[in-house]
Amino acid sequence: MRNLTMLMDFYELTMANGYFNLGLKDEWVVFDLFYRKNPDNGGFVIAAGLEQAIDYLLNLDFNQDDIAYLRSKKIFSEDFLAYLSELRFSGNVYGVKEGTIVYPNTPILTIEAPLCEAQIVETMLLLTINHQSLIATKANRIVRAAKGRAVMEFGARRAQGYDGAIYGTRACYIGGVGSTATVIADQMFNVPTVGTMAHSWVQYFDNEYEAFKAYATIYPNNCVLLVDTYDVISSGVPNAIRVAKEILAPLGHKLQGVRLDSGDLAYLSKKVRTMLDDAGLEDTKIVVSNSIDEYLLESLFEQGAMIDSFGIGERMITSSSEPVFGGVYKIVAKKQDNAYLPKIKISENTEKITNPGFKWTYRVYDENGMGMFDFLALHDEKIDIHTLDLVDENKPYKHIKINSNWSAERLQQQFIKDGKLVYELPSLQQIQDDVKANLAKVWDEEKRFSYPHKHYVDLTRKLYDVKCEMLKNYEGKN
Amino acid sequence: MRNLTMLMDFYELTMANGYFNLGLKDEWVVFDLFYRKNPDNGGFVIAAGLEQAIDYLLNLDFNQDDIAYLRSKKIFSEDFLAYLSELRFSGNVYGVKEGTIVYPNTPILTIEAPLCEAQIVETMLLLTINHQSLIATKANRIVRAAKGRAVMEFGARRAQGYDGAIYGTRACYIGGVGSTATVIADQMFNVPTVGTMAHSWVQYFDNEYEAFKAYATIYPNNCVLLVDTYDVISSGVPNAIRVAKEILAPLGHKLQGVRLDSGDLAYLSKKVRTMLDDAGLEDTKIVVSNSIDEYLLESLFEQGAMIDSFGIGERMITSSSEPVFGGVYKIVAKKQDNAYLPKIKISENTEKITNPGFKWTYRVYDENGMGMFDFLALHDEKIDIHTLDLVDENKPYKHIKINSNWSAERLQQQFIKDGKLVYELPSLQQIQDDVKANLAKVWDEEKRFSYPHKHYVDLTRKLYDVKCEMLKNYEGKN
Repeated sequence: MRNLTMLMDFYELTMANGYFNLGLKDEWVVFDLFYRKNPDNGGFVIAAGLEQAIDYLLNLDFNQDDIAYLRSKKIFSEDFLAYLSELRFSGNVYGVKEGTIVYPNTPILTIEAPLCEAQIVETMLLLTINHQSLIATKANRIVRAAKGRAVMEFGARRAQGYDGAIYGTRACYIGGVGSTATVIADQMFNVPTVGTMAHSWVQYFDNEYEAFKAYATIYPNNCVLLVDTYDVISSGVPNAIRVAKEILAPLGHKLQGVRLDSGDLAYLSKKVRTMLDDAGLEDTKIVVSNSIDEYLLESLFEQGAMIDSFGIGERMITSSSEPVFGGVYKIVAKKQDNAYLPKIKISENTEKITNPGFKWTYRVYDENGMGMFDFLALHDEKIDIHTLDLVDENKPYKHIKINSNWSAERLQQQFIKDGKLVYELPSLQQIQDDVKANLAKVWDEEKRFSYPHKHYVDLTRKLYDVKCEMLKNYEGKN
Repeated sequence: MRNLTMLMDFYELTMANGYFNLGLKDEWVVFDLFYRKNPDNGGFVIAAGLEQAIDYLLNLDFNQDDIAYLRSKKIFSEDFLAYLSELRFSGNVYGVKEGTIVYPNTPILTIEAPLCEAQIVETMLLLTINHQSLIATKANRIVRAAKGRAVMEFGARRAQGYDGAIYGTRACYIGGVGSTATVIADQMFNVPTVGTMAHSWVQYFDNEYEAFKAYATIYPNNCVLLVDTYDVISSGVPNAIRVAKEILAPLGHKLQGVRLDSGDLAYLSKKVRTMLDDAGLEDTKIVVSNSIDEYLLESLFEQGAMIDSFGIGERMITSSSEPVFGGVYKIVAKKQDNAYLPKIKISENTEKITNPGFKWTYRVYDENGMGMFDFLALHDEKIDIHTLDLVDENKPYKHIKINSNWSAERLQQQFIKDGKLVYELPSLQQIQDDVKANLAKVWDEEKRFSYPHKHYVDLTRKLYDVKCEMLKNYEGKN
C-alpha cells in the first residue's frame, strides 16, 4: 500500500500539537474502534480491512514534504514538527481477526498508544475498516441470497474511486464472491479474474453472428456470448446456438454460457433455458448481470428464474442500499500509574453513550458451537463463565443463563506490540474460508434479511458498575 | 496519480487480444462516455474527474510485472503481449471542460483511437468520471441548499476507500464547498483544510472546562469549541462562555465558534444562539456537523435554525441518497476510408438505445445567456442555428423554435491529439469558479430538488435520420 500518512483530518493535528505543547505526548491512552448499527438492518457485520489498517500503522511516516507542508500552515510548533518527522507508531494494537462476525458496540480494534499517535491514526483506521467491513458484509448478503450459485464481482466502473474498486473487490472476496472482473485485484490479491465480451465487441462486427463466430474461433474452450446487444430471443440466442453448432461443435467444444445484461431477467432466463435445452445445449450456463442485489436475487428465485451465475456490479461495490458504515473511534481509557482510568462519552441519545474502559469481547457458544451472545468485560477481569454475573444494560433485572456445557472465547488478539507486528497475517483465501466457518456458527435467525434476531451484547457486572458510577459521577459535575 | 493501467475489467483484455489476433488493431473507432439519468432525480450533472481521466490516458503503460502476470493467465498470444508492453495511448480525446453542466445522453468524453486502445481504457475512464461527477453534483446540491453559508467537507472517515476520500474531496471542491478536514486534499489540490477538536480532546481532560481552557490557551485566535461531549445546554455552552470571558477576552481574542455534533440541531442551535447572545458573544459562530445533506438543510432552515456553517460528512462524500452514477461507454462509430460508419446499441428499453455516430453537443442560449436546451449533431455538420432543423426524438412532430437573438456553443473541445495533450488543464480553483459561472446560466427551474424542469436534448434532422435508418435496417437483419 502507498504511504497515506497524510490522509487524516486536520483536527487530529491541531489536537496532537496541543497535547505535545502541553507536555502530554508520552501519556498513554486507549481508543476503541466500533460501530453502532448493522447496515441494511442486518443481523451482523463481517469485520474487514484489518490487514490494510495494520499495514498503515506499521508504515506511518511523515516525510520532509509533509513536514514542509505542515510548517506552511503556521500553527504547529517547530518542536512538534520535529517530533512528527521522527514519529513511528510505537503502540499496541488488539482486535478481532479479519473475517470475524461482529455486533454493534463491540471493539473491532483497540489502540493503546501515546496520546498523539493514538489520535492521528483515527481517520485512516476508520476509513479502512468502515469501507471494507461495509462491502464484505454486503457481498456476503448477496452471496447468501445466491444460494450456492456463482457470484462474480463486476462493479469497478461504478465504484467510488480507484480504491473503492481495488479494496472493495478484496472485501467482496472476503464476503464470499468467487471471482472478479477487476484485473488489478487478481494481480494484487489473487482474486480470480474473469471476463469475456462487452456489447462493443458485438457492435464492432457487421452483425451479431459474425461477432459470435469471431469470438468462438479465438476462445473455443471458454466461450460465453453476450446475447442482448440487439434482441435476446429473436437474435442473440439463435445466433449463439448457431455458433455452438457450426463453430464450436466441429472443434470439439461446447458453448460455455450466454450472458444477459438487460431486460426482464426472470422472464428471459426461463425462455432462454428452454431455447438452449431444445437445441441440445443443456450444459450451456445462463449468466446475468444487471443491477442485482440480495433483494432482486430473492425475487428472481421466487419467480423461478433459471440462472446459473451472477455478475454483480454497482449495488455490491458501493453497497448502494446503505453506502455508509458508521464506525467510530472513541477514547475509552487513560493510563495512569500502570492502571487504566476509564473514559466515557455521554450523549442525550443513550445509544451513543460509550462503554468505558480497556476491555475485551467474549463470545459464548452452546454445546454445538453455535454463537449464543457476546459480552464485554474489563481487560483484567478473570473470566469463568459459569460463575459470571452478566448484565443486559437495557434490562438489568434480567437473569442471564449460561448452561454448564457452554463455552466462551475471547475474540481479540494482539496484532502489534510496541509498534512491531506480532501476528501472522492470514492469506485472503484463508480469510474467506474463515468467514464461511464463522458463519456456520451463526443462527439462521440472525442471517435473515427481514427483522433478524438481535444478538445480545451484555456487560460483566464489574463493567456495568463502572459505567453506572461514571454516569452518576458525571451528573452536575461538568 | 499512481499508475493504474491494470485497473480494468478482464473482458477488455480478452476483447483486445481477440481484435489483435484478428488483425484489427489498427482499425480506428469512436466511443462516447455518457450517462442516462441524473442522480437524486436532479436537473443536471456537473462533469468532474476529467483531469484524472486525461492523466491516466497520458500515462497508460503496462510494465514488465503486468505483462508477466498477464502471460500467467495463458490465454493471451505472445504477439499481443509484446504489443501491450509497447502500448501508449495514441488516440484523440474530445470532451466537455471539467465543471461543465451536462445532461443525460450527451457525451462527456469522446475517445477516437485504435480499437484495442479505445477498449482497454473503458473501466478507468468510467470509474474516474462516474465517481467525481457523482460527488461534485451532490456537493453542489448541498452547497446550494446551504444558501451562502459556509460548507466544509468532513467525510474522509466514511468514504468508500482512500481515493473515495481524496478525489471525493476534490470533487466536493468543484461542487463548491469552501474547505475540508482532509489534510491530504489540501496538500495535493490546495483545498483549504480546517479542523479544531474531537470529543476525545474533551474527554481526555479531567473535565470539560479544563479541556476548553487548554485549547483556548494554545489556539486563542482560532478557538472553536465542541460543546456536545456531555450536555450542550447545561455544560458545553456555559463552559465555552466561561472560557471566552476568563481566557480569551483577557488575551484580546474572541471565541470564534461552538460546534454541535449531535442532538436536535434546529432546537439546540436556536437555544445556543440565545445563550451566546445573552453572554455578549454575538460574533461567535455556530457550526454543526451531524449526518447532514441538502434535504436536512432545507428542513433546518424551515425550522429557523441559527447555524453559520456546516461540516458535511458521509452523506456528501458517498452521495448516500444515490451512491451510484451510471455512466456508460459505448462504441458509436468505426472509421472507414476516412469516414465514420455509425454504430448503434439496440435495446428493448428504448431509453437504452444509443445515439449513433461521432457527434458534438451544442447548447443554445437565449439573449440573456441563459441555457435553453442542448442538441446533438454529427461532427461534420455545419451548424447555423437559425436555419437548423431540430427533432425531439420523443415528439418528432414538435416544432423547435430558436429566436433570432439566441446563440449556440459547441461544448466539446479537444484535450488529446494523437496521444499528446493539446489542452491547458485549469486549476481546481478555476474549475470551481467555472461551475459558479456555469450555474448562473441555468434556470432556477432546473435547480430545484423536487421535479426539476427537464432540459431538452434534441437531435439534428440529419442525426435523427441516421438513427431511424439504422433502427429500420436492423429489423430482422441479425
